Order: sequence, then structure tokens, then C-alpha cells
Amino acid sequence: MSKELKFAVLGGGSWATAIVKMLTENQEKVGWYMRNTEAISHIENEKHNPNYLSSVEFHTEQLELTEDIDTVVSKADILIFAIPSAFLETELKKLSASLAHKVIFSAIKGIVPETGLIVGEHFHDTYNIPFENIGVITGPCHAEEVALERLSYLTIACADKDKAELVAQNLSSDYIKTKISDDIIGTEYAAMLKNIYALAAGIAHGLGYGDNFQSVLMSNAIREMGRYIKRVHKMKRNINNSAYLGDLLVTGYSVFSRNRMFGNMIGKGYTVKSAQMEMKMIAEGYYAAESAYKMKGKFKKKVKTPIIDAVHKVLYENGNAKKVFKELTHKLD
Amino acid sequence: MSKELKFAVLGGGSWATAIVKMLTENQEKVGWYMRNTEAISHIENEKHNPNYLSSVEFHTEQLELTEDIDTVVSKADILIFAIPSAFLETELKKLSASLAHKVIFSAIKGIVPETGLIVGEHFHDTYNIPFENIGVITGPCHAEEVALERLSYLTIACADKDKAELVAQNLSSDYIKTKISDDIIGTEYAAMLKNIYALAAGIAHGLGYGDNFQSVLMSNAIREMGRYIKRVHKMKRNINNSAYLGDLLVTGYSVFSRNRMFGNMIGKGYTVKSAQMEMKMIAEGYYAAESAYKMKGKFKKKVKTPIIDAVHKVLYENGNAKKVFKELTHKLD
Repeated sequence: MSKELKFAVLGGGSWATAIVKMLTENQEKVGWYMRNTEAISHIENEKHNPNYLSSVEFHTEQLELTEDIDTVVSKADILIFAIPSAFLETELKKLSASLAHKVIFSAIKGIVPETGLIVGEHFHDTYNIPFENIGVITGPCHAEEVALERLSYLTIACADKDKAELVAQNLSSDYIKTKISDDIIGTEYAAMLKNIYALAAGIAHGLGYGDNFQSVLMSNAIREMGRYIKRVHKMKRNINNSAYLGDLLVTGYSVFSRNRMFGNMIGKGYTVKSAQMEMKMIAEGYYAAESAYKMKGKFKKKVKTPIIDAVHKVLYENGNAKKVFKELTHKLD
Repeated sequence: MSKELKFAVLGGGSWATAIVKMLTENQEKVGWYMRNTEAISHIENEKHNPNYLSSVEFHTEQLELTEDIDTVVSKADILIFAIPSAFLETELKKLSASLAHKVIFSAIKGIVPETGLIVGEHFHDTYNIPFENIGVITGPCHAEEVALERLSYLTIACADKDKAELVAQNLSSDYIKTKISDDIIGTEYAAMLKNIYALAAGIAHGLGYGDNFQSVLMSNAIREMGRYIKRVHKMKRNINNSAYLGDLLVTGYSVFSRNRMFGNMIGKGYTVKSAQMEMKMIAEGYYAAESAYKMKGKFKKKVKTPIIDAVHKVLYENGNAKKVFKELTHKLD
């Protein structure tokens, strides 16, 4: 691996693959760590990821692929993490290279189960990364549409505006527009919470609720998200910006969303366990529902979150989806 | 027709049919005016509207059908208008019965072309109806889902709270939840503007933009709608309530929406004229785009409405959809 690598992406999933694609539009070389060595060989030989976004063809001379996390971490300045939050710590524990002086951007939507923190806070608290070196990359953006080069908008949040702009520039292209923000906490929470709401939308759909109800659910969800985030980090933000409302909508409405699919199966009568076994991908909203629910229990001021509560009840308190959602309908307006 | 009729619905389309259905859940008799005498005979004989929501079976003894507008207007206390705004004046001109002392609720989304006013203002200005006797019935609600008895939420707005509540009660049922509001101006403008945004969503879809873009478009649309309505009638309102955001989403995302379908055809290359000929239903967003565009030209303070402007350019200024929407993408975030 060359000594001068600006960017490295950590993760082998669809979002990691999409981000690598975006970066290769601007950088000559991009570091890419994934633990799956077979996938690495496949990419090197066949020029595409065999498991995710396989239609994306890479110029392999632009990629510095490795299954050794230390290699990318020591060689690259800016590390973009796109590993499911549930596995982040397992990966980081392999690390012997130092994260100090690295700029870390999270493209992960979720909470790290070991610490109950969102990813930015986790890096700050556990690895002493200063907040000005931490950023967030958020949608609304389905990786699948990046593969198709359909126009998408990203929000790049960092307390240090210059770093946000640097990352934004390197992700931008004909089909990617970027916007910067200083709300790293809010955008990250939004990205986490929206998965719960998408899961709720899936449950409702599986139970037979229609489009009219879905729109009411989303209208209530964005208000609930606004209340929740305000408790976590109060600042002036427009909750209807793309990074919040847009991200909620793209996930809550799209058939690509694994959270919505997972919820749909629950609504149709699958148990949580059988739905998880049936789906190969992890529905991050499953973990997020637990974390967000626990976390709000610690808020100084209470917050009304009927949708999160309902999803939690179905997934973790053995609640009957039909009954729980019937009760939920009385709390929405 | 009996002398004691609380409610009458005016209109023969799908939304009129859905409202009649809702009312028959609560009222023994409902007046129903439509100009199509064949449809009236069909309903009387076959118990369903032949042209719209034909799966809805009525108990015809609950209906007082008539093709004479004077009959319903003189017999009923509360008149619910569900006639396309483009035809409202034509219908009202037939009227010799007095509208004084009537309570008038508009279930119409659009602007009356003859006066350039939204329906509530039109009744007030042209027929001297006091504002406390004027109300608005708004979604998010596709008539098609009412036919299926899928849970839907309505907002009933009136300056006179008691009247709002009376109408709300009479529309409520197992599958209809209602909420009252005092923002008759804002809800009515929202219902009109959302058709323009749905049309924009359709154009984008027809041009090949995907779900990521759609979510950004909707996120920008709700902010644009908020700015627009604030100029028309400044008051404390949460633009994310169902009557505003929910109504936008159900129209902008659903395949039932005729505005979205119309836009889709334009995006796919149909001319405005051929798209109109192809579709049997009227796309109200077509008229709304003209009205909203003209109206904002008269605002004291300017308002930034890139989406309305783009739709107007395509529909009325012979703009090339592909080019106009390409320009629009730079104005969204």
C-alpha cells in the first residue's frame, strides 16, 4: 500500500462499496479494508464486490484492498467507517495501529452496543479522538442508487468546517451533491432513529395499513425525531432538511430498506428470530430500537416517543404487533 | 328529499364518493348532488358509483341523490363541496337557492380559476359567506383507501371550533380518525400546493430520478410549502402535522395520485396536451401551478419557490423538463 493515502474506507457492505465508488471519482487511490478475504480476491480479479452492489465495476488500480485493518489505519489520513455498529468494536479490537491524529468519519447508522453510544461519541469517549477530528456522512442515500449513478445528496457533518468540506469535495461528482453541516450529534441520531421509524413503517405495512396511514406515521415520526434530538443536543436545526427528513423518507418509503423489510416480516407474523434468520442483512433498526429506548430513559426531561415505544414493545417485550399498533394509532394525529 | 338533512355532498368523483361513504357511517340520510344523471340511476339501481370507487356498496335508503343542485342546497345545513375547483363556478352558477346561513366545507384541493382564490376565500368573497361558516376537510387521505376501509386520518379546519367538531364527529368511524384545526387558510393552501409537488415528483420519476432524489425533493418541498404558507397567513403552525406534511407525502409518494401520474407522463416526454388527453381525470396540480405562481408574484415579500417555479416553467413556459429539472437540482439541498 502506498504511503500517501488520503482516504480509506472500512467495511465490505453495500454502503462501504458505494462510498469507495464515490471516492474513486476523485482520488487516484483509495484504501479499502474488509475482513472477507474471498471478497477481496474477487474484487481484485473480477473488478466488483461479489456480495454487494455487484454491478459496480471498479478500476482495481485505484483500490488498495487489504484484510489487515492496521494497514489502512496507519496509511490513510481520513478513515471512513462503514461497518455495522454491532460489529464495530470487534473490528476496532483487532487494531494495534494508533487512531491518534486520524480524521474519522462515520458512515454508520446506529449505536455501538458495547457502550450504548452513537459512533462519533464512541470514538471520542473510547479512543480519545477530539471532536474536531470526527465527522458523519449521512444521506438520504441508498447505496443501490449510487451504484446506478442516480442523483443523490449527502450531508457531511463535522465540527471542523474545513474537514467537512474536504470530505464533501471528495465524495462529490456528477451524481453526488454534498452539503456540509456542523450538527454531528443531530445528524447521527437522525440516521439512527430513522431506522426505527422505517421498521415501524414495515410493521404497519405488514399488518395491512395503507398509504394514508404511512403518511401519518411519517408525519408523526419526524416530529418525534425532532423532539428526541432536541433532548440529546439542543441547537438551531431545521428538522426538515435532507439529512433528517429526507433520510427518514428515503428509508421509510423505499423497498430497498432492510429495516422496512424486517418490519414487514414482523407485521406479517414472523417472529423476531425467524425474520432475522430469513434476512441475510442486519436490520440496524432492531438494535437502534433497544438503544434509543434505553437512552431516553436517562434523559433529564421526558420525551414522548410513541413510535419508538411501540417498536420496542413488539421487538423486545413480546408485544403482539397487531395489538401494539392498534394502540399506537390512537396516539398519532 | 326529506326536510331534515344535516349533510349534503356536492360532487360525483372519488373524493365525493368517499365522503358520502364516511357520512353514511354516522347519518341516517345524506344528500348527494352530482350532475351525472346516469351515475345517479346507476347508484340507485346497482348501489355503487359506476365511475369512482365502484367497490363501495351503498345502502341506497341512506342516500338522497339528486341532479338538482338547488335541492341539496336548500335542504341540507352543511354542504360539503367536492367538485374539482376548475368546475366549481360552473356548478354554483346553476344555483338559485341561497347559500346564506349554510355551513360550507370545502373538500376541494385547488384554486377557483375565475377568481384566483382558494375555495374558502372564494365562498367568502363571492358569496358573502362569513368565515365562521366556512371549513376545510383535508387529508392525508386517498379516496381509494377509504373505499378499502384502511385507517385514515383527516383534519377538519374551521374558525368555529364547534362546527369543526360536528363535521369531524360525523366523518369519524372505525377507519377514519379526525383532528380539528383553526388554520383554514394554511390547510387549504397546503392541500393545493402539495399537488404541485406531487406533479414535480412525477416529472422527476418520469425523467429517471430515483428514490434518493425523491426524498430530497420532498424535504425541499415541505420547506418551500412552509415558506409559501407563512407569506399567505402567518400563524403558529407545525408544518410537519398530518394536514401539511402528511398530505404532501401521501400525494407525492403514492401511485394513486393523478398529479404524480400526470407529471410522470410529462417527464417521460408527453406534451402537456397529450398527457391531459391520455388521462381521464383532471390533475389539479396543473391548475395549481399556474395559480400559485401568479399569486406569489403579488406577495409583498418575495418567497423562494424553486420547485413551483420549475413546474410552472415546464407546464406553462414551454420549458424542457429535463433541462429545467437539471437546473432545479442545483437549487435543492
